[in-house]
Amino acid sequence: MTYCIGISLDAGLVLTSDSRTNAGIDHVSQYSKMHRCATTPDRCLVIMSAGNLATTQGVIQQIRRDVQEGAPRNINTLNYLADVAEYLGDVLVNRIRKHTEQTGFVPDATLMLGGQIRGRNPNLYMIYPQGNYITSSEDTPYLQIGESKYGKPVLDRFLTLETSLEDAAVCSLISMDSTMKSNASVGPPIEMLLYPRDQFNAPIHYKLDAENPYLLAIRHEWANQLNHAFRAMPRLQDHAQPDNSLHSI
Amino acid sequence: MTYCIGISLDAGLVLTSDSRTNAGIDHVSQYSKMHRCATTPDRCLVIMSAGNLATTQGVIQQIRRDVQEGAPRNINTLNYLADVAEYLGDVLVNRIRKHTEQTGFVPDATLMLGGQIRGRNPNLYMIYPQGNYITSSEDTPYLQIGESKYGKPVLDRFLTLETSLEDAAVCSLISMDSTMKSNASVGPPIEMLLYPRDQFNAPIHYKLDAENPYLLAIRHEWANQLNHAFRAMPRLQDHAQPDNSLHSI
Repeated sequence: MTYCIGISLDAGLVLTSDSRTNAGIDHVSQYSKMHRCATTPDRCLVIMSAGNLATTQGVIQQIRRDVQEGAPRNINTLNYLADVAEYLGDVLVNRIRKHTEQTGFVPDATLMLGGQIRGRNPNLYMIYPQGNYITSSEDTPYLQIGESKYGKPVLDRFLTLETSLEDAAVCSLISMDSTMKSNASVGPPIEMLLYPRDQFNAPIHYKLDAENPYLLAIRHEWANQLNHAFRAMPRLQDHAQPDNSLHSI
Repeated sequence: MTYCIGISLDAGLVLTSDSRTNAGIDHVSQYSKMHRCATTPDRCLVIMSAGNLATTQGVIQQIRRDVQEGAPRNINTLNYLADVAEYLGDVLVNRIRKHTEQTGFVPDATLMLGGQIRGRNPNLYMIYPQGNYITSSEDTPYLQIGESKYGKPVLDRFLTLETSLEDAAVCSLISMDSTMKSNASVGPPIEMLLYPRDQFNAPIHYKLDAENPYLLAIRHEWANQLNHAFRAMPRLQDHAQPDNSLHSI
C-alpha cells in the first residue's frame, strides 16, 4: 500500500509520501514514491505514485525516454499543467493496457502531479488508472492517493487555501502518522516537499526516517495533546439523557 | 453505508450505531441498526447490522420466528455467546445464499453481537457474511462494521480493557463524528448502548439526533481541542533539516 497527500494552497504546494511497498505481506520493500522531473528551468514538476510498482516504474521510464528522444509531446514541450496530466494519463493507460492484454492481470496505478509552469499558477492533479484526472478545489485544497481514509479527517479539519506551507506540512505529518498507526503497509521514511509559489528551483525537500526526531516529536506531542483533548470532553452522564427507544426483537 | 462500533471492556460493553441507509445516493433512509433481543432473563443480547437491509431484516425476522416457534436452536436455548454467534452466522448465510442462488446478486451483510449470558463474561462478536466470526481481544478491545476507517485512529489511541464505559462512550461519539464528517452516507441519529457487566436488565440506551445538544457539544469541543492541539505542534522549520535526496527523473 501507499499513502500520498498533495495540498494546493495560495502559498504553493505541499507534497508528502510514505516509502513502503508490498507485494504480499512477506514481500515488503522501501521505494521512494516522490520523483522530481528534470525539466527546463521554466517549470517544476513532481510526480507521486501509488499502486503497482512495475507500472509506476514503467511510466517514469517512459517520461524520461520521451524527453531524451525529443518526442514532440513530453514534459518540457507542454504549456499547461493540465496537458502534462493528460500526457501522464496516456502513458499510464498504455502501460497498464499492455500487461492487461498480455495476461489479464490489471496492474493498476494512480499518479499525483504537482507543480508550476512559469506564467501560470501552481496546481495539483490526481491521475486515475483510466487516464482521466481531477484537480483540487477551493473547498477541498488537497488530494490523496493510496490508503486515504485514516488520515482524511485531520486534513478536512485544518486545511484551507489560506493555510501556510508550514502548517500544511505539519497537518500532512499528522495525517501520515495516523495512517501509519492504523495500517502497517504504510511506512517511513516520509518524504515531504514544500514548493513555494514561483520558486521554480527552490522546492524544499525533507526525508524523515522512522527515528527522525521531528517525526517522533510530532507523534509524541499529537498523542499528548489528544489525550488532553479527550480528558476535556463534556461527560456523558452530566449532559445526555438516556431513553427507552431501543428497538426490541 | 453504516458505521457501528462495539467495545468490550472489563466494565462491560459499549455499542454505538448510526442510522442512515442508502440504496443509491437518491434513496437515503433512516433505520435503526441496533436491536435488543427479547430473551429469557438470564441473558442480554444486542445485535447491530451493516450491509443489505433486506438481508438484515430477514435475519432479524428469522431470529424472532425461531423463538416464537420454539426451534431447538434459538437465542434462548444456546448456552454460550459464541454459540449464538455461530447460530446468527448460519441464519445470515442462509439468507444471503437464497438470494444469490435465485438471482446471482449477493446481498451481503455483516452483524455484530454483544451481550452476556449469566455465569459467563460479557463478550462481543463480529459475524461475517460467510458465517464465521471473530471476537475482540485484550490488545484491540473493539470491533467495527461498515465504514470503519475514518473513525479507527481515535479508537486505537484511547481504548484499553481498563477504559470506563463513560470514556468509551465519549470515544465512540468522537469516532462517529469523524466518520460523519468524512462520509455522507453515515448519519444520525446515533444510538448508543452502555451495558454494565452483570446488569442483565439495565442496559442504558441513548438516541442522539443531529441536533442533540450533547452530540453538538462533543463535536464543538473536539474541534476546539484539536485546533488547540494543532497550534501546539513543534514547528517544522525550527526542528527539521531539509536535505537534497529528492529523487530526480
